[in-house]
Amino acid sequence: MGNTAQFKLPETIALLERTPAAFNALLSGLPDIWTHRNEGGETWSAFDVIGHLIHGERTDWMARVRIILENGEARTFERFDRLGHILESRGKSLEQLLDEFARLRRQNLAALRALNLQPADLARRGQHPALGVVTLSELLATWAVHDLTHFHQVSRVMAHQYRAAVGPWSAYVGVLRCTGHSSP
Amino acid sequence: MGNTAQFKLPETIALLERTPAAFNALLSGLPDIWTHRNEGGETWSAFDVIGHLIHGERTDWMARVRIILENGEARTFERFDRLGHILESRGKSLEQLLDEFARLRRQNLAALRALNLQPADLARRGQHPALGVVTLSELLATWAVHDLTHFHQVSRVMAHQYRAAVGPWSAYVGVLRCTGHSSP
Repeated sequence: MGNTAQFKLPETIALLERTPAAFNALLSGLPDIWTHRNEGGETWSAFDVIGHLIHGERTDWMARVRIILENGEARTFERFDRLGHILESRGKSLEQLLDEFARLRRQNLAALRALNLQPADLARRGQHPALGVVTLSELLATWAVHDLTHFHQVSRVMAHQYRAAVGPWSAYVGVLRCTGHSSP
Repeated sequence: MGNTAQFKLPETIALLERTPAAFNALLSGLPDIWTHRNEGGETWSAFDVIGHLIHGERTDWMARVRIILENGEARTFERFDRLGHILESRGKSLEQLLDEFARLRRQNLAALRALNLQPADLARRGQHPALGVVTLSELLATWAVHDLTHFHQVSRVMAHQYRAAVGPWSAYVGVLRCTGHSSP
C-alpha cells in the first residue's frame, strides 16, 4: 500500500482549512436530488453530512484538544453524539449549513493556531471513551481524515441517485460498488 | 437502498459544472503529501486523477455524444485510454492541470448545451466496445457519476497518507477500509 506520511501540523491544517470551500463548491445551489436524498432508510444525505460536520466543530474536535492539554489522560473525552446533526440542521437550508460550517471551522483553526503547539504537545495523551489512550497528533490527524471520510461518503450517496440512470456502465464506475464502510 | 433518481439533463449539467471548482477548492495549493502521493505501486495520486479527468474531456465524453448523434449504433465508440493522463500531466503543475480541466469542462458543457437535446435525443443509442448498446442519457449520467467516482478515489488516496497517523482511530474512519473499488 506504499509508504504513509508522518503527521505534520501545517499539512494537517492545510487540509482542514480547504474542506468547507470544497463542500461549498460541490454542493451549494445543486439540485435537491443530489443533496437531500440518501441511500435509503436511516442513511444520511449530503445535507445531513454537513450538519454532522457542524456538530463536530461545535462539540468534538477542539473540545478534545483542550481536554488533552488541560487534563491529559485524567479526563475521558465526552462521547460524540452521532445524531447531533439533527438539531443542527432543523429548519435550515443547505447554504446556511455550508456557511455555518465554514465559519466554525475558521474559528476552530484560529484557536488551534493560537495554541502554538510544539512537538512535545503533539505527543501528549488523552483518554478516548472507547479507544483508550490516544495522542494529540492522532486526534488532529483524525480530524482531517474524518473530513475525507465524509467526502468519500457524500460522493457515494450522490452517485447512488444515478445507479439506475447509468445503465450498463454501473459495472465500470467503482463508487457504485462501495458498500458504505465510509458511514460515520 | 432507497429510490434512485430519474435522469434529468439540467440536474446532470449542474453537477458536471461544479466538479472543477470542487477539486480546485480541495487541492489547489495543498502540500504535496496530499496531492502527489498514491496508494503504492502503480496506483494514482490526486495529481494523476486530474490528468485523467482532462483526458476524458479531450477524448471521451463529448466525442461519444457526437458519435451517438451522428452515427448511432453504426459506429462503435473508440476505447478510452486509461493511461492517457500520463501525457496530459507531463511537466505540468497541479494548478495548471486544475485550470486546464476547468477550461475544457466549460467548453464541453457549452457544446452540450448548444446541442439543445430533446427527450427523443436522450433515448438515442450507441455502441460501446465492451458494454454493447447504451443510450445517450446513460452516457451523460455516467459522465457525472464518473466525476463522483474520482472524488471517492481522491478522498481515499488522501486519507491513506494518514493511515498510520490516526493511530487507534483507524477503526472508526470508514474511508480507510475502502478497498479501492473506486479505481478508474
